[in-house]
Amino acid sequence: MQFAGTHVLSVEQFERGDIDRIFAVADAMAPYALRQKVTRVLEGAILGNMFFEPSTRTRVSFGCAFNLLGGNVRETIGLESTSLAKGESIYDTARVLSGYSDIICMRHPTAGSVAEFAAASRVPVINGGDGANEHPSQALLDLYTIRKELHHHGRELDGLRIAMIGDLKHGRTVHSLCRMLTLLKQVKVVLVSPQELAMPELYIELLRQAGHQVTISTDLTDSIAQVDIIYSTRIQEERFASKAEAAMYRGRFRLNQATYTQYCEPNTVIMHPLPRDSRAEANELDNDLNHNPNLAIFRQADNGILVRMALFALILDVAHAVDLHARPVNWYHRRS
Amino acid sequence: MQFAGTHVLSVEQFERGDIDRIFAVADAMAPYALRQKVTRVLEGAILGNMFFEPSTRTRVSFGCAFNLLGGNVRETIGLESTSLAKGESIYDTARVLSGYSDIICMRHPTAGSVAEFAAASRVPVINGGDGANEHPSQALLDLYTIRKELHHHGRELDGLRIAMIGDLKHGRTVHSLCRMLTLLKQVKVVLVSPQELAMPELYIELLRQAGHQVTISTDLTDSIAQVDIIYSTRIQEERFASKAEAAMYRGRFRLNQATYTQYCEPNTVIMHPLPRDSRAEANELDNDLNHNPNLAIFRQADNGILVRMALFALILDVAHAVDLHARPVNWYHRRS
Amino acid sequence: MQFAGTHVLSVEQFERGDIDRIFAVADAMAPYALRQKVTRVLEGAILGNMFFEPSTRTRVSFGCAFNLLGGNVRETIGLESTSLAKGESIYDTARVLSGYSDIICMRHPTAGSVAEFAAASRVPVINGGDGANEHPSQALLDLYTIRKELHHHGRELDGLRIAMIGDLKHGRTVHSLCRMLTLLKQVKVVLVSPQELAMPELYIELLRQAGHQVTISTDLTDSIAQVDIIYSTRIQEERFASKAEAAMYRGRFRLNQATYTQYCEPNTVIMHPLPRDSRAEANELDNDLNHNPNLAIFRQADNGILVRMALFALILDVAHAVDLHARPVNWYHRRS
Repeated sequence: MQFAGTHVLSVEQFERGDIDRIFAVADAMAPYALRQKVTRVLEGAILGNMFFEPSTRTRVSFGCAFNLLGGNVRETIGLESTSLAKGESIYDTARVLSGYSDIICMRHPTAGSVAEFAAASRVPVINGGDGANEHPSQALLDLYTIRKELHHHGRELDGLRIAMIGDLKHGRTVHSLCRMLTLLKQVKVVLVSPQELAMPELYIELLRQAGHQVTISTDLTDSIAQVDIIYSTRIQEERFASKAEAAMYRGRFRLNQATYTQYCEPNTVIMHPLPRDSRAEANELDNDLNHNPNLAIFRQADNGILVRMALFALILDVAHAVDLHARPVNWYHRRS
Repeated sequence: MQFAGTHVLSVEQFERGDIDRIFAVADAMAPYALRQKVTRVLEGAILGNMFFEPSTRTRVSFGCAFNLLGGNVRETIGLESTSLAKGESIYDTARVLSGYSDIICMRHPTAGSVAEFAAASRVPVINGGDGANEHPSQALLDLYTIRKELHHHGRELDGLRIAMIGDLKHGRTVHSLCRMLTLLKQVKVVLVSPQELAMPELYIELLRQAGHQVTISTDLTDSIAQVDIIYSTRIQEERFASKAEAAMYRGRFRLNQATYTQYCEPNTVIMHPLPRDSRAEANELDNDLNHNPNLAIFRQADNGILVRMALFALILDVAHAVDLHARPVNWYHRRS
Repeated sequence: MQFAGTHVLSVEQFERGDIDRIFAVADAMAPYALRQKVTRVLEGAILGNMFFEPSTRTRVSFGCAFNLLGGNVRETIGLESTSLAKGESIYDTARVLSGYSDIICMRHPTAGSVAEFAAASRVPVINGGDGANEHPSQALLDLYTIRKELHHHGRELDGLRIAMIGDLKHGRTVHSLCRMLTLLKQVKVVLVSPQELAMPELYIELLRQAGHQVTISTDLTDSIAQVDIIYSTRIQEERFASKAEAAMYRGRFRLNQATYTQYCEPNTVIMHPLPRDSRAEANELDNDLNHNPNLAIFRQADNGILVRMALFALILDVAHAVDLHARPVNWYHRRS
């Protein structure tokens, strides 16, 4: 695809080559995120960070990624103060707001609304999550993390073996990840959930059509024995009819260091889209894993900065120029 | 007037020459807003964007205008977290907050409070709307838009023919626009509203004292037949005692493409302070006008950036220096 | 202490030499805060300004201080949108958020939570207030103000005579100030409050252990007769069981110009952590003091910028480099 000026609305718009391109640029962003260098390539550019539904870390991650490229960020948080409440159409909102910035990130509670906004926008729009629908930068950072962790152990994306665990019915991230996996070759997927929270048939069908091997299980220890990646998720309490209903499923699949040591192959990587639910009754990934070098959950969050920097650089067509505007960092920095 | 260091609190403080000066500087800001150039003239300056009453687009418009000149923006949104609730006087608030930035934009729910704040402030203050009282940058961008649209058709501000339509009783923008029109010569104004939502006598009197011809009407089609500008407004539901009362007036004056074609002169320009109410029962400007080249409502919103950049440049006394700190834009940009 | 990379969590971590170092750097920041010069030493650096409890002026003060050094600011306000509500541990929150910025300022409603956050953070953390516990930058700016005002009259910190007045039970600032005073020599402290709102024994003990002379009083005029500094505070209504209970104490100790003239030595300096409660029934510092040149309350707020700039410069190890990245200000500025 042509990245310059494009909207990023759905993982469906990417082909394998696009992913490879995004990941190559993300790799090149690491020295900036690690504070070995500073770049000012987007100095003077403005990001409109429009979060009509609150989300601290996605919002801050997008904003910091833009700052790291040298640009400014103007933000909106929440719906209450917007003109939508006064009967304004999304078309009008998009026409007005797109006159204020060079690019827009938008989260909105309604599925499809970001695409509707993008259609009327005069600047590129990145979907930061539209209800239960899409959150493409999360899917990209997940696949990017899988690739990076595998490379670290000398493996490639093709041939990946992955177990997805938890609330596979409501988890937007595992749905998008399934779509992403259709771009790879020869993947083995184990889907582990309570029957009532099973992966929707749609996504299982997509994986099978891509030639992947899909196994469905309700048993944790069997499922994690022969995989490269364990992708754990929390029970999405807020999507259940009642807290009591959600409570029935919390704590069903708990991974701790003892289980990991007993059942997993060496160097099995543990991922989670975060937040992990650390309350005693949930605790899907125990804190005793915090010093396991294969717990990749915080590297995964860090990778969000790299992938979002890459999206900005590609959409605003400055990927080639980032290093031209670079200089050393002259302040204290430590990142471990 | 002397712009450097002045507060902008009311449209009443401007004379015709001041308006001309602001508009000339606003014209010069276009290449920056259109992303043909970047300037860093205010690099290091700080705007305190204090919105004690939420307003997404006015807030973002001021913030982006300041960013476009190279400055930083620090924001406050809402009243709940402020010290006013703990018994602090506006004098104290102003003395403290004015120590944090080079200039302040302030919106406040109480009429007169911004002027009170400005009296104690150590830095210039721009009124971003104080209750039902004033919103001078909106009035400036409206008149700037009228001028620019007229110029496009080879006409001048003096001799303007304009119809204001809708809720003329509650609309702060039409009140301020009336004040602005007193600076012009030989204006013909048609005021179209339900009798209960008529323009207050004060403003009609101001127009007549300026020598302008004022016609009052309750009929849409007659009123738009011989004007240069149609200035439509929505029913300001939030100012009525009940939603039911507001509903009595919504949808009374609807302009669509068919009406426009049948009644208007060629190149009659359509304006609206936005948001327009696009719900079926209101719809004062139909969506079928969206491709009418004389629908100026989004150019009007874009002009807000230019006028606010001009105010910042004049008040901070850098209007002459903007181009000295300019350079080309090196990222993807498209603005239509 | 070694400033580079350190967390600033408590006033207890400072020795006298540390304070002197911070104040020397704060002095050097004045030309930037006064807009005689601009520096870009932290251009490209990012402050994560995480206010999980709202506080307009502390938040804006930190943000502006970082902007004045040339850095960017990304903010979060309020708890509702955070992952803590979804069962995330502070450890996880800290691991994630500390990947987004170079330094973090954090306010949180729970005592001890900022220290817990800092323990897991990969970047330095400044405590911007954790419940009723600590607010070290406020204590630093208070002591800095005392020093600066004394110097103005040719006096030194050692030998200081100070009266603290008002709600000494609930006031976090007077508690921290007591700790600070233990770093000085030969201080005379008069503590003036209703008996029910007396300074906790802990702090009185600390002062006495430091060799200071402590006098306890319920009478205002006696207490302010022989001091260098009057430190007035408001009744912290929000900490009382009911508004009615707080109302019993408001207005008990009122200082106005007549009282000042009658009882105080010449050049007695008046301080207050702000906001002062200017409602008629409270009015601990009357507005008729506003033109008293020894009313230092707004200089005190201004000093917050200097002290916070100093903390950033020292922690990020650029104090020596600030002037190397300086240039003249080219826009209108006036500060009185």
